[in-house]
Amino acid sequence: MTAKRNAGWLKVVGLGPGAEALITPEVSAALSEATDAVGYLPYVERVPPRLGLTRHGSDNREEIRRAEQALQLAADGHRVVVVSSGDPGVFAMAAALFEALEAGEPAWRELDIQVLPGISAMLAASARLGAPLGHDFCCINLSDNLKPWALIERRLRLAAEADFAMAFYNPRSKARPEGFERALEVLREACGPARLIMFARAVSTPQESLSVTTLGQAQPAMADMRTLVIVGSSQTRLIERTAEGAPWIYTPRSVSGTGS
Amino acid sequence: MTAKRNAGWLKVVGLGPGAEALITPEVSAALSEATDAVGYLPYVERVPPRLGLTRHGSDNREEIRRAEQALQLAADGHRVVVVSSGDPGVFAMAAALFEALEAGEPAWRELDIQVLPGISAMLAASARLGAPLGHDFCCINLSDNLKPWALIERRLRLAAEADFAMAFYNPRSKARPEGFERALEVLREACGPARLIMFARAVSTPQESLSVTTLGQAQPAMADMRTLVIVGSSQTRLIERTAEGAPWIYTPRSVSGTGS
Repeated sequence: MTAKRNAGWLKVVGLGPGAEALITPEVSAALSEATDAVGYLPYVERVPPRLGLTRHGSDNREEIRRAEQALQLAADGHRVVVVSSGDPGVFAMAAALFEALEAGEPAWRELDIQVLPGISAMLAASARLGAPLGHDFCCINLSDNLKPWALIERRLRLAAEADFAMAFYNPRSKARPEGFERALEVLREACGPARLIMFARAVSTPQESLSVTTLGQAQPAMADMRTLVIVGSSQTRLIERTAEGAPWIYTPRSVSGTGS
Repeated sequence: MTAKRNAGWLKVVGLGPGAEALITPEVSAALSEATDAVGYLPYVERVPPRLGLTRHGSDNREEIRRAEQALQLAADGHRVVVVSSGDPGVFAMAAALFEALEAGEPAWRELDIQVLPGISAMLAASARLGAPLGHDFCCINLSDNLKPWALIERRLRLAAEADFAMAFYNPRSKARPEGFERALEVLREACGPARLIMFARAVSTPQESLSVTTLGQAQPAMADMRTLVIVGSSQTRLIERTAEGAPWIYTPRSVSGTGS
């Protein structure tokens, strides 16, 4: 076991939102040293193929099996990267890896494991739009694959009451396409129709698109699984530019009232 | 004005938490093309000096004046980077820049402005600890310089009710050192003494330190202005490792109950 522990390692890495220029040097170094890359197929395909690297792509929703495979490879002495889009710690592979670690072979706890952060979709989208997350905010996964819908709705209402800006991952799950429509209704009721909402799709890729509207005007079809949705707080502001180009959206650092 | 607009630009960039290996290539390129670097003195000092680059360091709490200076330099045809630690959109210079832009010279709105994301302290700390932000979470600035303390307390209570994991920036402001003590009291009351709390100081720098304890054991002195504090949700778990080293902390992706 000791020999294996010294040779193999496992790094859960974030590839950022898409552009190469948003991958940290730390992650690039891990990718170039790995013998095995494990992850959801479209993300594994972002790791350039090379001699000595085996890429193991798997389907969506296979996170635990994938994590177990990665842990076993590392236990067998391989140098393994588990790849996620964005940041691995935000609705991605890091949590799944630790779930598998806790439930799995005791020997796996001896492994050399690291999590290497990446630029999350939330930060990349926010930067493109201006600074909508410039004050207190929350981040909610709108998919109800792994939690009851009632909890999502409850969190939306409490987040609105706290006057957080909100970033939403997985706004439209295939299993429940009506979920996002319901989320928009809850938010309209809690925040009013004038509240700003932003849709940032595939930021930093050739498919990037951005749009800014209000809850009153927002349509469920404006989001798909590649869209990061941000809803402003009551303080979030829009700056029209005199030149062509989308307006800037930002949430000021200071709050004058009580924020309710 | 048109000539100036074509020549100058302004990029609000994130330098990440400290390590060079966590600076994105996009930000490194901007730093190497800039004629002027503007920011809080300790952050400007992280930009390597070179011929053709003027570094303008300023004091803390001078964000608006600093943003105005940067906008004017860009309007005068300079290539300006405004530097923040971490990500510029999370309690950093991007919001201040847009505040200054909205209140300032109309001609500034013609400028070529971009925000370039960085690895935030929150993501870096979370990666070192495991995956404590692996499920829904919120992010709150505990400084009451720019918002009333009552609003902070209200957000803490609502975040606890929503069962978010929580990331706290600026836990102890010099102006109000008793704030964090009060925050801990509110959280103890709302989440109970067994809830996990993590202190991640100066992550990725030589001064890095991590500690994990419970709300019942936490002391205000465990945090300073360089500490990112994370409080787990009710679901957050700890994995003891059989080898030496700190335990892993993670928040699972699924929720069994209603989360209350």
